[in-house]
Amino acid sequence: MDFKSYIRDVPDFPKPGILFKDITPLLQDYRALHSAADNLLKDLEVGGIDKVVGMESRGFIFGPMLADRLEAGFVPIRKPGKLPYKTLSESYDLEYGTDTLEIHVDGIAKGDRILIHDDVLATGGTALATTKLIEKLGGLIIQCNFLIELSFLKGREKIKSHEVKALITY
Amino acid sequence: MDFKSYIRDVPDFPKPGILFKDITPLLQDYRALHSAADNLLKDLEVGGIDKVVGMESRGFIFGPMLADRLEAGFVPIRKPGKLPYKTLSESYDLEYGTDTLEIHVDGIAKGDRILIHDDVLATGGTALATTKLIEKLGGLIIQCNFLIELSFLKGREKIKSHEVKALITY
Repeated sequence: MDFKSYIRDVPDFPKPGILFKDITPLLQDYRALHSAADNLLKDLEVGGIDKVVGMESRGFIFGPMLADRLEAGFVPIRKPGKLPYKTLSESYDLEYGTDTLEIHVDGIAKGDRILIHDDVLATGGTALATTKLIEKLGGLIIQCNFLIELSFLKGREKIKSHEVKALITY
Repeated sequence: MDFKSYIRDVPDFPKPGILFKDITPLLQDYRALHSAADNLLKDLEVGGIDKVVGMESRGFIFGPMLADRLEAGFVPIRKPGKLPYKTLSESYDLEYGTDTLEIHVDGIAKGDRILIHDDVLATGGTALATTKLIEKLGGLIIQCNFLIELSFLKGREKIKSHEVKALITY
Protein backbone atom coordinates (compact mmCIF):
# COMPACT_ATOMS: atom_id res chain seq x y z
CA MET A 1 0.00 0.00 0.00
CA ASP A 2 1.28 3.47 -0.88
CA PHE A 3 0.93 5.00 2.60
CA LYS A 4 2.34 8.37 1.47
CA SER A 5 -0.75 8.89 -0.67
CA TYR A 6 -2.79 9.01 2.58
CA ILE A 7 -0.63 11.74 4.18
CA ARG A 8 -1.73 15.32 3.51
CA ASP A 9 0.77 18.18 3.34
CA VAL A 10 -0.51 21.28 5.15
CA PRO A 11 1.76 24.29 4.53
CA ASP A 12 2.54 26.83 7.27
CA PHE A 13 1.18 24.70 10.15
CA PRO A 14 1.57 25.10 13.09
CA LYS A 15 3.66 28.12 12.07
CA PRO A 16 4.91 29.80 8.86
CA GLY A 17 7.56 27.80 6.99
CA ILE A 18 6.56 24.38 8.40
CA LEU A 19 5.09 21.78 6.01
CA PHE A 20 2.93 19.68 8.34
CA LYS A 21 2.34 15.98 7.63
CA ASP A 22 -1.36 15.41 8.37
CA ILE A 23 -2.12 11.74 9.13
CA THR A 24 -5.92 12.12 9.42
CA PRO A 25 -6.65 10.95 5.83
CA LEU A 26 -4.86 7.69 6.69
CA LEU A 27 -6.74 7.30 9.99
CA GLN A 28 -10.16 7.80 8.48
CA ASP A 29 -9.66 5.15 5.76
CA TYR A 30 -10.17 1.73 7.31
CA ARG A 31 -7.93 -0.20 4.95
CA ALA A 32 -5.06 2.28 5.35
CA LEU A 33 -5.46 2.33 9.18
CA HIS A 34 -5.53 -1.46 9.39
CA SER A 35 -2.65 -1.99 6.97
CA ALA A 36 -0.48 0.67 8.65
CA ALA A 37 -0.89 -1.13 12.01
CA ASP A 38 0.01 -4.48 10.39
CA ASN A 39 3.08 -3.02 8.72
CA LEU A 40 4.30 -1.20 11.84
CA LEU A 41 4.56 -4.62 13.48
CA LYS A 42 6.24 -6.44 10.60
CA ASP A 43 9.49 -7.19 12.48
CA LEU A 44 7.86 -7.98 15.85
CA GLU A 45 6.35 -11.14 17.25
CA VAL A 46 3.28 -11.62 19.43
CA GLY A 47 4.64 -12.46 22.86
CA GLY A 48 7.91 -10.55 22.39
CA ILE A 49 6.65 -7.25 23.85
CA ASP A 50 5.20 -6.74 27.36
CA LYS A 51 4.18 -3.07 27.07
CA VAL A 52 3.69 -0.55 24.29
CA VAL A 53 4.52 2.97 25.47
CA GLY A 54 2.85 5.82 23.54
CA MET A 55 3.30 9.55 23.83
CA GLU A 56 0.46 12.08 24.20
CA SER A 57 -1.56 12.74 22.10
CA ARG A 58 -0.98 11.20 18.71
CA GLY A 59 1.07 8.29 20.08
CA PHE A 60 -2.21 7.22 21.74
CA ILE A 61 -3.76 6.53 18.33
CA PHE A 62 -1.65 3.60 17.10
CA GLY A 63 -0.06 2.69 20.45
CA PRO A 64 -3.01 0.79 21.96
CA MET A 65 -3.87 -0.75 18.57
CA LEU A 66 -0.34 -2.15 18.37
CA ALA A 67 -0.56 -3.34 22.01
CA ASP A 68 -3.85 -5.09 21.22
CA ARG A 69 -2.26 -6.97 18.30
CA LEU A 70 0.95 -7.81 20.21
CA GLU A 71 -1.00 -9.03 23.27
CA ALA A 72 0.83 -6.38 25.31
CA GLY A 73 -0.35 -3.71 27.74
CA PHE A 74 -0.38 0.01 26.91
CA VAL A 75 1.36 2.69 29.00
CA PRO A 76 0.77 6.39 28.29
CA ILE A 77 3.46 9.08 28.53
CA ARG A 78 1.86 12.46 29.18
CA LYS A 79 2.55 16.14 29.64
CA PRO A 80 3.05 17.38 33.22
CA GLY A 81 0.06 17.21 35.58
CA LYS A 82 -2.06 14.92 33.39
CA LEU A 83 -1.27 11.54 34.98
CA PRO A 84 -3.09 11.18 38.30
CA TYR A 85 -0.84 8.73 40.19
CA LYS A 86 2.85 8.93 41.22
CA THR A 87 5.04 9.87 38.26
CA LEU A 88 8.64 10.01 37.10
CA SER A 89 9.53 13.09 34.99
CA GLU A 90 12.10 13.84 32.31
CA SER A 91 12.77 17.25 30.75
CA TYR A 92 14.21 17.89 27.30
CA ASP A 93 15.30 20.92 25.30
CA LEU A 94 13.15 22.62 22.70
CA GLU A 95 14.24 25.27 20.20
CA TYR A 96 13.29 27.81 22.88
CA GLY A 97 12.98 26.55 26.48
CA THR A 98 12.30 23.03 27.71
CA ASP A 99 9.43 20.56 27.88
CA THR A 100 8.69 17.72 30.31
CA LEU A 101 7.17 14.26 29.99
CA GLU A 102 5.79 12.01 32.73
CA ILE A 103 5.14 8.29 33.21
CA HIS A 104 3.43 6.47 36.07
CA VAL A 105 6.05 4.83 38.31
CA ASP A 106 4.10 1.54 38.21
CA GLY A 107 3.67 1.63 34.41
CA ILE A 108 6.74 -0.49 33.77
CA ALA A 109 8.18 -3.35 35.82
CA LYS A 110 11.88 -4.19 35.85
CA GLY A 111 12.72 -6.32 32.81
CA ASP A 112 9.55 -5.46 30.82
CA ARG A 113 10.20 -5.63 27.07
CA ILE A 114 9.05 -2.30 25.63
CA LEU A 115 7.95 -1.04 22.23
CA ILE A 116 7.93 2.78 22.05
CA HIS A 117 5.43 4.21 19.56
CA ASP A 118 4.80 7.76 18.39
CA ASP A 119 3.29 9.09 15.19
CA VAL A 120 6.26 11.21 14.10
CA LEU A 121 10.03 11.07 14.71
CA ALA A 122 11.19 14.66 14.20
CA THR A 123 14.19 16.04 16.17
CA GLY A 124 14.03 13.07 18.56
CA GLY A 125 13.72 15.08 21.78
CA THR A 126 10.48 13.41 22.86
CA ALA A 127 11.74 9.97 21.89
CA LEU A 128 15.02 10.38 23.80
CA ALA A 129 13.24 11.58 26.96
CA THR A 130 10.89 8.59 26.65
CA THR A 131 13.79 6.11 26.41
CA LYS A 132 15.28 7.64 29.58
CA LEU A 133 12.00 7.30 31.53
CA ILE A 134 11.67 3.66 30.49
CA GLU A 135 15.26 2.79 31.35
CA LYS A 136 15.02 4.48 34.77
CA LEU A 137 12.12 2.13 35.53
CA GLY A 138 14.16 -0.89 34.40
CA GLY A 139 12.41 -1.46 31.06
CA LEU A 140 14.23 -3.03 28.12
CA ILE A 141 13.60 -1.12 24.88
CA ILE A 142 13.11 -3.55 22.00
CA GLN A 143 12.21 -1.01 19.31
CA CYS A 144 11.35 2.68 18.79
CA ASN A 145 8.49 2.64 16.30
CA PHE A 146 7.07 5.58 14.30
CA LEU A 147 4.47 6.04 11.62
CA ILE A 148 6.53 8.85 10.02
CA GLU A 149 10.20 9.79 10.17
CA LEU A 150 11.31 13.27 9.10
CA SER A 151 14.83 12.06 8.33
CA PHE A 152 16.19 15.54 7.50
CA LEU A 153 15.75 16.44 11.20
CA LYS A 154 18.12 13.59 12.16
CA GLY A 155 16.10 12.42 15.19
CA ARG A 156 17.35 8.86 14.61
CA GLU A 157 20.84 9.94 15.73
CA LYS A 158 19.53 10.94 19.18
CA ILE A 159 18.25 7.41 19.82
CA LYS A 160 20.88 5.49 17.83
CA SER A 161 21.60 3.01 20.63
CA HIS A 162 18.11 1.58 19.95
CA GLU A 163 16.47 -0.13 17.00
CA VAL A 164 14.40 2.45 15.11
CA LYS A 165 11.62 1.60 12.68
CA ALA A 166 9.50 4.03 10.63
CA LEU A 167 6.75 3.13 8.19
CA ILE A 168 6.96 6.31 6.08
CA THR A 169 10.16 8.33 5.60
CA TYR A 170 10.55 11.86 4.24
CA MET B 1 -14.20 -9.79 33.87
CA ASP B 2 -14.50 -7.42 36.82
CA PHE B 3 -13.36 -4.25 35.04
CA LYS B 4 -13.84 -2.09 38.14
CA SER B 5 -10.98 -3.92 39.82
CA TYR B 6 -8.68 -2.40 37.16
CA ILE B 7 -9.78 1.20 37.83
CA ARG B 8 -7.77 3.08 40.47
CA ASP B 9 -9.34 5.79 42.62
CA VAL B 10 -7.07 8.82 43.00
CA PRO B 11 -8.44 11.30 45.57
CA ASP B 12 -8.16 15.07 45.07
CA PHE B 13 -7.18 14.90 41.39
CA PRO B 14 -7.13 17.12 39.36
CA LYS B 15 -8.36 19.29 42.25
CA PRO B 16 -9.42 18.90 45.91
CA GLY B 17 -12.67 17.03 46.40
CA ILE B 18 -12.56 15.13 43.09
CA LEU B 19 -12.16 11.34 43.19
CA PHE B 20 -10.45 10.63 39.88
CA LYS B 21 -11.01 7.31 38.08
CA ASP B 22 -7.59 6.28 36.75
CA ILE B 23 -7.85 3.86 33.82
CA THR B 24 -4.10 3.22 33.44
CA PRO B 25 -4.09 -0.07 35.43
CA LEU B 26 -6.66 -1.41 32.93
CA LEU B 27 -4.63 -0.19 29.92
CA GLN B 28 -1.39 -1.76 31.07
CA ASP B 29 -2.90 -5.21 31.59
CA TYR B 30 -3.24 -6.91 28.20
CA ARG B 31 -6.16 -9.13 29.08
CA ALA B 32 -8.14 -6.24 30.59
CA LEU B 33 -7.36 -3.95 27.62
CA HIS B 34 -8.37 -6.60 25.10
CA SER B 35 -11.49 -7.67 26.94
CA ALA B 36 -12.63 -4.07 27.50
CA ALA B 37 -12.41 -3.41 23.74
CA ASP B 38 -14.39 -6.60 23.01
CA ASN B 39 -17.07 -5.68 25.53
CA LEU B 40 -17.38 -2.07 24.36
CA LEU B 41 -18.45 -3.47 20.98
CA LYS B 42 -20.87 -6.10 22.27
CA ASP B 43 -23.97 -4.55 20.68
CA LEU B 44 -22.31 -3.51 17.41
CA GLU B 45 -21.63 -5.39 14.17
CA VAL B 46 -18.64 -5.27 11.88
CA GLY B 47 -19.82 -3.35 8.81
CA GLY B 48 -22.42 -1.33 10.73
CA ILE B 49 -20.13 1.62 11.49
CA ASP B 50 -18.26 3.76 8.94
CA LYS B 51 -16.27 5.97 11.34
CA VAL B 52 -15.37 5.94 15.01
CA VAL B 53 -15.04 9.49 16.37
CA GLY B 54 -12.81 9.88 19.44
CA MET B 55 -12.12 12.93 21.58
CA GLU B 56 -8.63 14.18 22.55
CA SER B 57 -6.72 12.79 24.38
CA ARG B 58 -8.09 9.72 26.15
CA GLY B 59 -10.73 9.03 23.49
CA PHE B 60 -7.75 8.33 21.21
CA ILE B 61 -6.83 5.28 23.27
CA PHE B 62 -9.80 2.99 22.63
CA GLY B 63 -11.24 4.86 19.61
CA PRO B 64 -8.81 3.55 16.96
CA MET B 65 -8.78 0.08 18.55
CA LEU B 66 -12.58 -0.05 18.21
CA ALA B 67 -12.33 1.27 14.63
CA ASP B 68 -9.79 -1.45 13.80
CA ARG B 69 -12.14 -4.15 15.09
CA LEU B 70 -15.24 -2.67 13.41
CA GLU B 71 -13.42 -2.23 10.06
CA ALA B 72 -14.20 1.49 10.30
CA GLY B 73 -12.05 4.62 9.95
CA PHE B 74 -11.05 6.80 12.90
CA VAL B 75 -11.73 10.55 13.10
CA PRO B 76 -10.17 12.64 15.91
CA ILE B 77 -11.92 15.53 17.66
CA ARG B 78 -9.37 17.96 19.08
CA LYS B 79 -8.93 21.12 21.08
CA PRO B 80 -8.68 24.39 19.10
CA GLY B 81 -5.65 24.89 16.87
CA LYS B 82 -4.52 21.25 16.92
CA LEU B 83 -6.06 19.97 13.69
CA PRO B 84 -4.08 21.23 10.69
CA TYR B 85 -6.74 21.25 7.93
CA LYS B 86 -10.10 23.11 7.62
CA THR B 87 -12.20 22.59 10.74
CA LEU B 88 -15.71 23.00 12.09
CA SER B 89 -15.91 24.21 15.74
CA GLU B 90 -18.41 23.83 18.56
CA SER B 91 -18.24 25.56 21.95
CA TYR B 92 -19.78 24.30 25.18
CA ASP B 93 -20.16 25.58 28.73
CA LEU B 94 -17.91 24.59 31.60
CA GLU B 95 -18.43 25.33 35.28
CA TYR B 96 -16.49 28.57 34.69
CA GLY B 97 -16.21 29.77 31.07
CA THR B 98 -16.44 27.77 27.85
CA ASP B 99 -14.39 25.26 25.90
CA THR B 100 -14.25 24.47 22.17
CA LEU B 101 -13.83 21.30 20.11
CA GLU B 102 -12.90 20.97 16.44
CA ILE B 103 -13.29 18.35 13.71
CA HIS B 104 -11.87 18.30 10.17
CA VAL B 105 -14.61 19.23 7.69
CA ASP B 106 -13.71 16.21 5.52
CA GLY B 107 -13.65 13.80 8.49
CA ILE B 108 -17.26 12.73 8.00
CA ALA B 109 -19.23 12.33 4.77
CA LYS B 110 -23.02 12.80 4.60
CA GLY B 111 -24.73 9.60 5.74
CA ASP B 112 -21.68 8.09 7.48
CA ARG B 113 -22.72 5.83 10.38
CA ILE B 114 -20.83 7.04 13.44
CA LEU B 115 -19.75 5.53 16.75
CA ILE B 116 -18.68 8.20 19.25
CA HIS B 117 -16.13 6.99 21.82
CA ASP B 118 -14.62 8.67 24.86
CA ASP B 119 -13.13 7.23 28.01
CA VAL B 120 -15.46 8.94 30.50
CA LEU B 121 -19.03 10.32 30.32
CA ALA B 122 -19.16 12.95 33.06
CA THR B 123 -21.41 16.04 32.68
CA GLY B 124 -21.88 15.30 28.97
CA GLY B 125 -20.65 18.68 27.68
CA THR B 126 -17.95 17.22 25.47
CA ALA B 127 -20.25 14.46 24.23
CA LEU B 128 -23.05 16.89 23.34
CA ALA B 129 -20.68 19.21 21.43
CA THR B 130 -19.35 16.16 19.58
CA THR B 131 -22.83 15.03 18.54
CA LYS B 132 -23.48 18.54 17.15
CA LEU B 133 -20.27 18.55 15.10
CA ILE B 134 -21.11 15.15 13.63
CA GLU B 135 -24.68 16.08 12.79
CA LYS B 136 -23.62 19.36 11.14
CA LEU B 137 -21.46 17.28 8.80
CA GLY B 138 -24.39 14.96 8.01
CA GLY B 139 -23.22 11.98 10.08
CA LEU B 140 -25.71 9.52 11.57
CA ILE B 141 -24.89 8.73 15.21
CA ILE B 142 -25.42 5.01 15.90
CA GLN B 143 -24.11 4.96 19.49
CA CYS B 144 -22.29 7.08 22.08
CA ASN B 145 -19.83 4.69 23.70
CA PHE B 146 -17.85 5.18 26.93
CA LEU B 147 -15.50 3.12 29.03
CA ILE B 148 -16.81 4.77 32.23
CA GLU B 149 -20.04 6.60 33.08
CA LEU B 150 -20.19 8.81 36.18
CA SER B 151 -23.95 8.47 36.39
CA PHE B 152 -24.34 10.89 39.33
CA LEU B 153 -23.28 13.72 36.96
CA LYS B 154 -26.28 12.92 34.68
CA GLY B 155 -24.35 13.34 31.40
CA ARG B 156 -26.63 10.77 29.78
CA GLU B 157 -29.53 13.24 29.93
CA LYS B 158 -27.68 15.73 27.73
CA ILE B 159 -27.38 13.19 24.90
CA LYS B 160 -30.63 11.32 25.54
CA SER B 161 -31.76 11.42 21.90
CA HIS B 162 -28.92 8.95 21.19
CA GLU B 163 -28.16 5.38 22.26
CA VAL B 164 -25.64 5.52 25.13
CA LYS B 165 -23.47 2.57 26.20
CA ALA B 166 -20.97 2.48 29.07
CA LEU B 167 -18.86 -0.48 30.14
CA ILE B 168 -18.37 0.60 33.77
CA THR B 169 -20.87 2.69 35.73
CA TYR B 170 -20.36 4.55 39.03
